Amino acid sequence: MIARRPTSSVSVGSVQLGSSGPVVIQSMTKVPTTDVARCVRQIQRLVRAGCGLVRIAVPRRADTIAFGQIVQKVRVPLIADVHFSADRAVEAIEAGAAKVRLNPGNIKKQQDIFRIIDAAKMHRVAARIGVNEASIRDLKKAPVPPEKRTALMLEEMRSYIRLFEARGFDQIVLSAKSSDALRTIEVNRAIAETFGYPIHLGLTHAGLPADASIPSAVALGTLLAEGVGDTVRVSAAGDPVVETEIARAILICLGLLERTQPELIVCPTCGRTEIDVVKLAKRVESALRKVAKPCRVAVMGCIVNGPGEAADADIAVCAAREKAALYLHGRKIAVVPEAEIIPRLLGAIAQV
Amino acid sequence: MIARRPTSSVSVGSVQLGSSGPVVIQSMTKVPTTDVARCVRQIQRLVRAGCGLVRIAVPRRADTIAFGQIVQKVRVPLIADVHFSADRAVEAIEAGAAKVRLNPGNIKKQQDIFRIIDAAKMHRVAARIGVNEASIRDLKKAPVPPEKRTALMLEEMRSYIRLFEARGFDQIVLSAKSSDALRTIEVNRAIAETFGYPIHLGLTHAGLPADASIPSAVALGTLLAEGVGDTVRVSAAGDPVVETEIARAILICLGLLERTQPELIVCPTCGRTEIDVVKLAKRVESALRKVAKPCRVAVMGCIVNGPGEAADADIAVCAAREKAALYLHGRKIAVVPEAEIIPRLLGAIAQV
Repeated sequence: MIARRPTSSVSVGSVQLGSSGPVVIQSMTKVPTTDVARCVRQIQRLVRAGCGLVRIAVPRRADTIAFGQIVQKVRVPLIADVHFSADRAVEAIEAGAAKVRLNPGNIKKQQDIFRIIDAAKMHRVAARIGVNEASIRDLKKAPVPPEKRTALMLEEMRSYIRLFEARGFDQIVLSAKSSDALRTIEVNRAIAETFGYPIHLGLTHAGLPADASIPSAVALGTLLAEGVGDTVRVSAAGDPVVETEIARAILICLGLLERTQPELIVCPTCGRTEIDVVKLAKRVESALRKVAKPCRVAVMGCIVNGPGEAADADIAVCAAREKAALYLHGRKIAVVPEAEIIPRLLGAIAQV
Repeated sequence: MIARRPTSSVSVGSVQLGSSGPVVIQSMTKVPTTDVARCVRQIQRLVRAGCGLVRIAVPRRADTIAFGQIVQKVRVPLIADVHFSADRAVEAIEAGAAKVRLNPGNIKKQQDIFRIIDAAKMHRVAARIGVNEASIRDLKKAPVPPEKRTALMLEEMRSYIRLFEARGFDQIVLSAKSSDALRTIEVNRAIAETFGYPIHLGLTHAGLPADASIPSAVALGTLLAEGVGDTVRVSAAGDPVVETEIARAILICLGLLERTQPELIVCPTCGRTEIDVVKLAKRVESALRKVAKPCRVAVMGCIVNGPGEAADADIAVCAAREKAALYLHGRKIAVVPEAEIIPRLLGAIAQV
């Protein structure tokens, strides 16, 4: 079990962010915010996929109006994603946002930041305070060399937190974003050591899903394994349900989220393998899609390691040429011809 | 930069394993070992994909004979994957293995283990000593409850190391394998704290590549980010070149391996996006495949964050409706119509 870093607790509508609750997956709508019906449909898909919070961009006045309509139509707490404009932030707060995401660095006037804080306080709305590697500048407004960036991001974060705290506001979630996995790990470790607020983890503009999943798994996984991170968002171009699935896979493999479907483990195959394991595994995967039961199914193409390595699986199929041995909780229950593997496997799952 | 955990240095043929050298990717052949020609072709593909070591299973006498023929035909150091049989290990050592992989737990007689050690010593061959969560047993040979497994794996490892050290052998690489990411992290952290030998990281029987990549990235990434791990193998069912590509992606995003091709970052898209970013990104990805130059190319569908977030990219395409602004090292160099994006981008890469 991972020992979460102790944090304060922040209410985001009905969701509690922080170490006393689970790590919450969030994603972002990717259809025009003013298209309320499509937004609502995308939000509902995200909730079904496992999002506990959904964020919506509100760049224009029309978007905060639409935001207010969307809030009325969904149950999941919504986060308004605000850049540059205090007006948009205040409008979204008044329209029913449960949280606003701000990079205070791009809201120029301190007075505007105070306006947002006061509105958030009055409406009991949380705020994410973000710093971003790409936008940090030194005192002369020049780009910062890599070795100084973590310290400067931490300093920038500290100055924003002071602004919020000075105004008597503590419903704060912190995020330090970068497109670099190592920077993300380093700066979030530093923030976790320095501040007690919940942390939002994510990589910025990660890539197409196939490219995005590994850096996200490395950066978010490393921090989560060290107990750091209270809400996560995997960024990938395209359908946000895919982002949610990647985030789920990261949390599940760290024991931070319970599995609801079978887990399929497949031996890597080697020179000992007598059959086409990938083909069999894909058949099993397809059959398992309809099973809503969390169990561990192993497909092994190995008579050497197969039964031993599959001992921690609930059900194992150790396949050799034209037949397979089925194991239930490590005990051999049957040797079946190839055609019967799938039906017998599904039968065995019913017994788990 | 990641500070590697200091380890001893182990020679595996021409490759030095340990903290004084780079983290080495390895994979395993997945064609019958006795099919020497296919094995050699697969090894050559693995080397081109980035493997610094290749492992081969040698379950039968015919396999160690073939192993000796394969050794003659490739330059990369080869590891013999041995289970159960001291004879196979000794034969592989005599046939030119640079390293043998052993799970001493499945070689029953201590005398047999000594026979392997003596052969390895004489031929200056390294040994990987492995323990595996699935095969640990308590003193009564009963399965071990989860909370005791890490300690027992560590104890088992300690007893094997003593056996090798007592025989005057120190060319040792350690591995503790599990199919569980969290167990893998926990046990390898413990081993890293306890012993000074290089560590081999991997998850056992991970799954189909799409399922295997996230747990592998989380487990291996977490350990590598903490400085633990000197050689890695990603296990996935199917073509081992895919395993190697996943391993490369993990090492690259942690700065442990240099990129040789462009990195494509793509904004996640949101309600502000005016164009089909995924479609444009896939066109760019396809064009970049032919470019053998490590640089960072960003495809952004955002006029708000795009130029700022892409400031750390060498080249950025910030696309709006029917046109795109091209940035080179953060400076806008052109605004081009859609049809000219790809050629102008490739032209800009030549200037990086």
